[in-house]
Amino acid sequence: MMVHFNGQFLEKTQVAISPDDRGFLFADGLYEVIRSYSGRLFRAAEHLERLAHGLKELRIEGLDARSLQPIAEQLITGNKLEGTDAIIYFQVTRGAAPRTHEFPAAGTPPTVYVQARAYSRPTKLQDDGAAAILAADQRWSRCNIKTTGLLPNILARQQAHEAGAFEAIFTRDGLLQEGSHSSILFVKKDVLVCPTLTNRILPSITREVVIKCAAAESIEYEIRSCREGELATFDEVMMLGTGVEIVPMTSVNGRKIGHGYPGRITRKLQKAFRDHVAVHS
Amino acid sequence: MMVHFNGQFLEKTQVAISPDDRGFLFADGLYEVIRSYSGRLFRAAEHLERLAHGLKELRIEGLDARSLQPIAEQLITGNKLEGTDAIIYFQVTRGAAPRTHEFPAAGTPPTVYVQARAYSRPTKLQDDGAAAILAADQRWSRCNIKTTGLLPNILARQQAHEAGAFEAIFTRDGLLQEGSHSSILFVKKDVLVCPTLTNRILPSITREVVIKCAAAESIEYEIRSCREGELATFDEVMMLGTGVEIVPMTSVNGRKIGHGYPGRITRKLQKAFRDHVAVHS
Repeated sequence: MMVHFNGQFLEKTQVAISPDDRGFLFADGLYEVIRSYSGRLFRAAEHLERLAHGLKELRIEGLDARSLQPIAEQLITGNKLEGTDAIIYFQVTRGAAPRTHEFPAAGTPPTVYVQARAYSRPTKLQDDGAAAILAADQRWSRCNIKTTGLLPNILARQQAHEAGAFEAIFTRDGLLQEGSHSSILFVKKDVLVCPTLTNRILPSITREVVIKCAAAESIEYEIRSCREGELATFDEVMMLGTGVEIVPMTSVNGRKIGHGYPGRITRKLQKAFRDHVAVHS
Repeated sequence: MMVHFNGQFLEKTQVAISPDDRGFLFADGLYEVIRSYSGRLFRAAEHLERLAHGLKELRIEGLDARSLQPIAEQLITGNKLEGTDAIIYFQVTRGAAPRTHEFPAAGTPPTVYVQARAYSRPTKLQDDGAAAILAADQRWSRCNIKTTGLLPNILARQQAHEAGAFEAIFTRDGLLQEGSHSSILFVKKDVLVCPTLTNRILPSITREVVIKCAAAESIEYEIRSCREGELATFDEVMMLGTGVEIVPMTSVNGRKIGHGYPGRITRKLQKAFRDHVAVHS
């Protein structure tokens, strides 16, 4: 597999991350994931803008996030992914330097790693839905930045996996936040309910697209905080992500959502999303 | 520099961390730091027991933490550090595997990296003291596990650095927690005040030694939660760490602690700690 590492295109097996890399030592870095459909990147500008925002927040210098788009395109070509769907993974860290908690010397170049691999959307999950569990949100307080400090997400996702579920929905202070590796939306009486974006929730690109699709389909939506206790009143729950697109959650903690199968609004949004992708990618 | 990486002793420049390493991708790993004095490890068993506890908490399998002690000793010899003080750094991750949030396949070996380097205690800081600031604790809720997810610590330490201070003391829910890279103790009317160990505070090995020294010196101590508002009533503040040992904090947020120079109890504990090290390392 051809990947990009610090300005070079090379075989993945040749990549050597330094043991002094601040991504390895400290999770002092960011990541991003972009989908390509038949070789065309989907919403690349938005993803790279989110990365640029993260770089600014963490004050990681020396990279123009927009420069990663042609790199992603070269990896699609170089790995013969023009005819298929693919996932492009980007990781940027504050670089390699002798271990100190404070930032390294000015001019230390960031570490940049980009990988592209073939991906097939999970059609069975999209069609049949999947189970979710609730998990206490143990994460830090800046979850709106897409950092690589994902251990709390790992532990929640593993907890879901062992419970036979596909996703864990984080709850904190009595509110439903987001999934361990996805964005979560709800439906209540034909209204799409979207948790308010706060420092506890990553601003999901897929969510933005889905909300636009809802508007175009004349589905009413509202953005508000969602209490954990409301879960029993929701008719539909769906998880969104760059890879999974829209997957219905048909149960949470073993309790059926609605009638326990994918709901009408979810189906409508899945179709609208795929139509949107067909036109806009 | 000779280091240890996944069962081998090799030159540091030859170490190649995989871009699929879960330490790099997710901060899915732990670290530990042990001091050696004139070639002899100090409190190695306690440090490796803490690492073993972390491995158990995170369910990282395939490593007996105690096996790292002879490796550290070989690195001291191999790098000719017998006659000097040194810092040995250990990092263990859940290994390298295709990127998925859930744990990788059973049997995936953990990544193990150990480095030893010469270190001199910061005598000027120990003698003169240093400034500290307060910083909002944005970390996750399991700070009692020594994971590599240190970005909030990085940001707080950098904030201190830019304020001309040496340490940032985390505050949360109105309580003083610990430093961004140290343990913090206080003195109030000749009593050593030690914040209660909770999920927000790493159980510091140096702190345990210092509390023992206090007892041996007939210094009264108490373990209790410490309110941020109490800071003005503390006569002394000190930070503790494997590297720094005991450093007096002579101001916090620009406000003098006591008379603004290292206090009597801190001095007494510094001497007792060094005597203890001379006997026990």
